[in-house]
Amino acid sequence: MIRPIVLLTDFGHRDPFAGIMKGVILSRAHKATVVDLSHTIRPGDIPAAALALRQSVPYFPKRSIFTVVVDPGVGSNRRAVWGRSRTHDFLAPDNGVLTWLQDEDRIVEWREVANTRLFLSKVSSTFHGRDIFSPVCASLADGLPASQLGPRILDPVRLPWPEPRSVRDGLEGVILSRDHFGNVVTNIPAAQVQRRGHIFHRGRDLGPLRTHYAAVPPGRPLAVAGSAGLIEISTRDGDYAARSRARRGDPVHVRYRA
Amino acid sequence: MIRPIVLLTDFGHRDPFAGIMKGVILSRAHKATVVDLSHTIRPGDIPAAALALRQSVPYFPKRSIFTVVVDPGVGSNRRAVWGRSRTHDFLAPDNGVLTWLQDEDRIVEWREVANTRLFLSKVSSTFHGRDIFSPVCASLADGLPASQLGPRILDPVRLPWPEPRSVRDGLEGVILSRDHFGNVVTNIPAAQVQRRGHIFHRGRDLGPLRTHYAAVPPGRPLAVAGSAGLIEISTRDGDYAARSRARRGDPVHVRYRA
Amino acid sequence: MIRPIVLLTDFGHRDPFAGIMKGVILSRAHKATVVDLSHTIRPGDIPAAALALRQSVPYFPKRSIFTVVVDPGVGSNRRAVWGRSRTHDFLAPDNGVLTWLQDEDRIVEWREVANTRLFLSKVSSTFHGRDIFSPVCASLADGLPASQLGPRILDPVRLPWPEPRSVRDGLEGVILSRDHFGNVVTNIPAAQVQRRGHIFHRGRDLGPLRTHYAAVPPGRPLAVAGSAGLIEISTRDGDYAARSRARRGDPVHVRYRA
Repeated sequence: MIRPIVLLTDFGHRDPFAGIMKGVILSRAHKATVVDLSHTIRPGDIPAAALALRQSVPYFPKRSIFTVVVDPGVGSNRRAVWGRSRTHDFLAPDNGVLTWLQDEDRIVEWREVANTRLFLSKVSSTFHGRDIFSPVCASLADGLPASQLGPRILDPVRLPWPEPRSVRDGLEGVILSRDHFGNVVTNIPAAQVQRRGHIFHRGRDLGPLRTHYAAVPPGRPLAVAGSAGLIEISTRDGDYAARSRARRGDPVHVRYRA
Repeated sequence: MIRPIVLLTDFGHRDPFAGIMKGVILSRAHKATVVDLSHTIRPGDIPAAALALRQSVPYFPKRSIFTVVVDPGVGSNRRAVWGRSRTHDFLAPDNGVLTWLQDEDRIVEWREVANTRLFLSKVSSTFHGRDIFSPVCASLADGLPASQLGPRILDPVRLPWPEPRSVRDGLEGVILSRDHFGNVVTNIPAAQVQRRGHIFHRGRDLGPLRTHYAAVPPGRPLAVAGSAGLIEISTRDGDYAARSRARRGDPVHVRYRA
Repeated sequence: MIRPIVLLTDFGHRDPFAGIMKGVILSRAHKATVVDLSHTIRPGDIPAAALALRQSVPYFPKRSIFTVVVDPGVGSNRRAVWGRSRTHDFLAPDNGVLTWLQDEDRIVEWREVANTRLFLSKVSSTFHGRDIFSPVCASLADGLPASQLGPRILDPVRLPWPEPRSVRDGLEGVILSRDHFGNVVTNIPAAQVQRRGHIFHRGRDLGPLRTHYAAVPPGRPLAVAGSAGLIEISTRDGDYAARSRARRGDPVHVRYRA
């Protein structure tokens, strides 16, 4: 069985850091298949990485090994953890980045990655992506049983998922992120919104959920069910985030009126 | 036979979109070889993607499958199309992006991609790269005959290639794009220019076509036969596009004088 | 034996140049494993590429083939060279980019890449990455003996490594680069610094070498032994380079006081 290794980091593309991880992986698992999910998570932005994982995991082959290195605490005493969902494996610093997965992807077994014999012989204090996460994910891809990684743990750091709140006239959510096109992603599941609800952001009524961008004229804003099942706000053929100055944490409302 | 899948999109690198495509591809074709041509086409810039394809296709293994997702019309009623040249296969939205290929690479058979059984079971209205193009290209790489994709079509959307015009004292072309180094690419085939022609842009005489950058002193502009066979204008060891404020669509002249 | 091909260029990600290299490589070596080390070296920045190689080479499988295309002299009469260290192979323009490797990785045999039968049939004057380096590295990965490349040479262009200098009260080094996080890398090996030495930059005493970022409060600068064994200056959870306006070539001192 081929188990792809999927990398998600904040290392950027200019420096050779992500490439070095692949060097270490290939040194230990010659035939590994490595996929880049993203290396341009904003430095240290754990929620952004957690959200990217949430969107991505269901689309990868079973037993893919997601290796996440967004790690502002590198070199401190934070643990490294391994987790297993019903369908996939995960390695990451113990900072909550694995705890925004969708219900069906949630992690059902956690271990501390504590077996130093699996690490590179010299572990730096600033680049655990190279010295710990790469050799460990390569060993897993190469067949190492997870029980060899370290003891089971029950207390991983958890990041609370920001559930939208029910309010008098509808729902109140927040903006979680913006994408490359300027679409903003909210925490409101499109499936929770009834057809007559209108979406509001910064006082503007964006109308009901549309089924596709072309439902409004070019240059006009709209709300759609995004590809991750969450409500997104977009400008057709434009950059909504730039035009509206939307920011993460902005409130977004769904309002029902008689 | 290994048929590489070559991805060309405007998804950028920050979001996990290109990575998710690879997840879908590997889920269906475990041993697929996937190559990134570019994911940073400017959002919705169909001509830029068409030009990148034109430059790239001849250098890829025969029967590579180019999967192009620059798709401002996603979710509307635009078709998805498959095309076959003598040597390669292509999948893209039906928006003309496959119609700037060089003559020897031009598409000789078109089909609508209409067989929904090949798609993911749930097709979103905003991410056909994931839901349609990835599973379909994986199926092709895995051996699916193209006849299974959908009916032949004769009327794909075509984007006219901007031929340079003959004018009284030479040729008039335009700037098509700029590259990462600040070189600008024109639509004038270097092979059409006789040795005594001088190249002009923004009123400046750039001299005759040079054979290499070092033919002029550092910091000086020049015209060369670019790697795609088209005339390019460059600054030696500098960024011509920034210095000259060149823009796409700028006229460029080749002038012959007695 | 699988010999990964490792690419390091200044081609950027927008244009299809790096992708085209992979097309050429896969056309000649169908099963090649290609790893991107970086494609966003600043255009023409030979020292940056040389430093990235120095940091990266030890972590790649033995006999990996590093193919470096940072080549401001493309099209002039500069040579293309192949080099072999005890453990790895290298291809690059003859501009010194291979001469900052660590002692144990230094190149022990050089050849000029002169066998034009290995190149693409038509060699442009502006894209040797495509026309020369890609087909040659693919041939090597496919088993070609290096003796077929061209004659041995003894006079490759060498770039002097900037050794730190001993001064009256300690050491004087320089800043070599900054990374994506804003950490700056110096040329001073951490192993050369005794425990009581303090690091100074721009007149500021950064204290002694720390073992990890969390040794100082968030927002405070510090000096650490970086992952490449060189002293780095960082801001905990911040961007030191931006805050301090550090520049390449800035002097950095290690001072010992009674």
